[in-house]
Amino acid sequence: MADFIVALDCMGGDNAPEEPVKGAIDALKKDKELRVILVGDEATLRNLVQDPGEDITSRIEYLHTTEVIETAEPPVKAISRKKDSSLVQAMKLVKDEKADAFVSAGNSGAILVGGQVIIGRMPGVKRAPLAPLIPTEKGFSLLIDCGANLDSKPENLVQFALMGSIYMEHVMGKKNPTVAIVNVGAEEEKGNALVKETFPLLKAEERINFIGSIEARDIPSGYADVIVCDAFVGNVILKLYEGVAKTIGHVLKKAFKSNVLSMLGAGLSISAIKKELKSFDTKEYGGAPMLGLNGMVVKTHGSAKAIEFKTSILQCRTFRDQRLNEIIRDNI
Amino acid sequence: MADFIVALDCMGGDNAPEEPVKGAIDALKKDKELRVILVGDEATLRNLVQDPGEDITSRIEYLHTTEVIETAEPPVKAISRKKDSSLVQAMKLVKDEKADAFVSAGNSGAILVGGQVIIGRMPGVKRAPLAPLIPTEKGFSLLIDCGANLDSKPENLVQFALMGSIYMEHVMGKKNPTVAIVNVGAEEEKGNALVKETFPLLKAEERINFIGSIEARDIPSGYADVIVCDAFVGNVILKLYEGVAKTIGHVLKKAFKSNVLSMLGAGLSISAIKKELKSFDTKEYGGAPMLGLNGMVVKTHGSAKAIEFKTSILQCRTFRDQRLNEIIRDNI
Repeated sequence: MADFIVALDCMGGDNAPEEPVKGAIDALKKDKELRVILVGDEATLRNLVQDPGEDITSRIEYLHTTEVIETAEPPVKAISRKKDSSLVQAMKLVKDEKADAFVSAGNSGAILVGGQVIIGRMPGVKRAPLAPLIPTEKGFSLLIDCGANLDSKPENLVQFALMGSIYMEHVMGKKNPTVAIVNVGAEEEKGNALVKETFPLLKAEERINFIGSIEARDIPSGYADVIVCDAFVGNVILKLYEGVAKTIGHVLKKAFKSNVLSMLGAGLSISAIKKELKSFDTKEYGGAPMLGLNGMVVKTHGSAKAIEFKTSILQCRTFRDQRLNEIIRDNI
Repeated sequence: MADFIVALDCMGGDNAPEEPVKGAIDALKKDKELRVILVGDEATLRNLVQDPGEDITSRIEYLHTTEVIETAEPPVKAISRKKDSSLVQAMKLVKDEKADAFVSAGNSGAILVGGQVIIGRMPGVKRAPLAPLIPTEKGFSLLIDCGANLDSKPENLVQFALMGSIYMEHVMGKKNPTVAIVNVGAEEEKGNALVKETFPLLKAEERINFIGSIEARDIPSGYADVIVCDAFVGNVILKLYEGVAKTIGHVLKKAFKSNVLSMLGAGLSISAIKKELKSFDTKEYGGAPMLGLNGMVVKTHGSAKAIEFKTSILQCRTFRDQRLNEIIRDNI
């Protein structure tokens, strides 16, 4: 199989450019058929790469850019004005077929806009969803959509379900993944207008393993592999997951610190707790793919470290090896 | 002040009829101006009351009913067919002004439907929201709406914000409570169509202390006192809160049981953990009020125990003493 080239936006995210560069080197060590184009301030990037050995450096290229899109910038403006930003230039490499995949921890909105306007959607794909994996008691589920597709239509949600299923089956290796739609009750007649219209369409879609509605309380238990919803709801789910976990962490910390006995108890239990909570950590699963584009786009968490960049880069290889985009194209 | 009469649906919820009856007796012990009408199978209820003393029994009445609305029954059908259910008959007591307030742990949908069709909305109130309190690091916030008002309109959300503010200020004692709308980002231009239309209306509403958008990740920290959203989103938030907390509980339990040291650690820390988590428990705050009706309606959790029934009953007193409905009526 031919070399596989990832365009890495090295200037995006809280830990840029150090962590993306480290992650790229780690990925290159792991995968000998991989090439990476580091996009950003070339002098800085070269300095960070240092000397990992000829085998690695021979598979690194640089694309020098002079601008950076900040996390809080309005996406549409940023994309149209900062033509020489690492994000825009790295996306152009995919558009121009100089790279197979794009990875970034940068401004989510800009990635979502850029994915659609620079790289473009596949023919037939109405909206390109962003689909992060969320941790569950059984492992992980794909939450689709958490992107910029607010006020989705039923036909969009059906495409999300289909693309999400293909992703879970072919990239994450879940055979015949279950698909459920986020709803306020288990019964078919429940739901807002969007869900009521979408439900029968999903039921009729033979290419997915649709199991009906999922109430939000059943998401963390891992009731469904692919969780379909409008991006507004997806955003609420994703961020509340984060918020509740963080708050419970604070509460536990307070409890452990409250007296000498509980501090001692904490000392004895902490490694077991950390180990269990680690299974609740998505780092190992890579970033969130943006599906249905003419190229591969992966958004990693804004606070991603080298391990997440590495996993995201390697994940793109799996997309290609599994012919993800071809399968999506054939099914949409 | 005249006696205050609560109609208690004793047949609703997982722990009916024992826990509602116990809760009623506890409330009657606490509040000497309170009267309760126990609605349900009279023989069973009389048997449960036993002999708490003349002071209590003199303030208990019974309304015998022969039907029970089950938790999973379709609400509209249940309300129209089961005319002699405890839920319908208890609501009728409020409608007919034989009771001041209605409390139930029964079928949420039936309570929401019954509230609107039996008791009825105040003039000017377009939709009557259900507003549970959710625990936060700072105490609690009011999540409005979690009811049956799917596909709300901007004007509905503005009424929710107003009623929620009044409730938090006058019943829960938060001076000048902050109000925020659930959104996918902090900026004013973000959001789906509903949020974009509602945002300027909330901003222009001088009777509330509107602080802008709230992202779901900031809900558990207690960023806003009143959290406004469409009921679909409210349901997702409420149930995910529950789901994530439960799953983290499972994970911790697994960690504590994983080896001898961590079990020992758990033994030492457990009382401190329980104490801290208790502050994360809404039992003491009572049930969720359904606001904007011609009477008081409180929905307690389906798994409510005596303490929650007691708190919910006493909470209705606060509504009355604080003239909640008069204030809402004057402001809508």
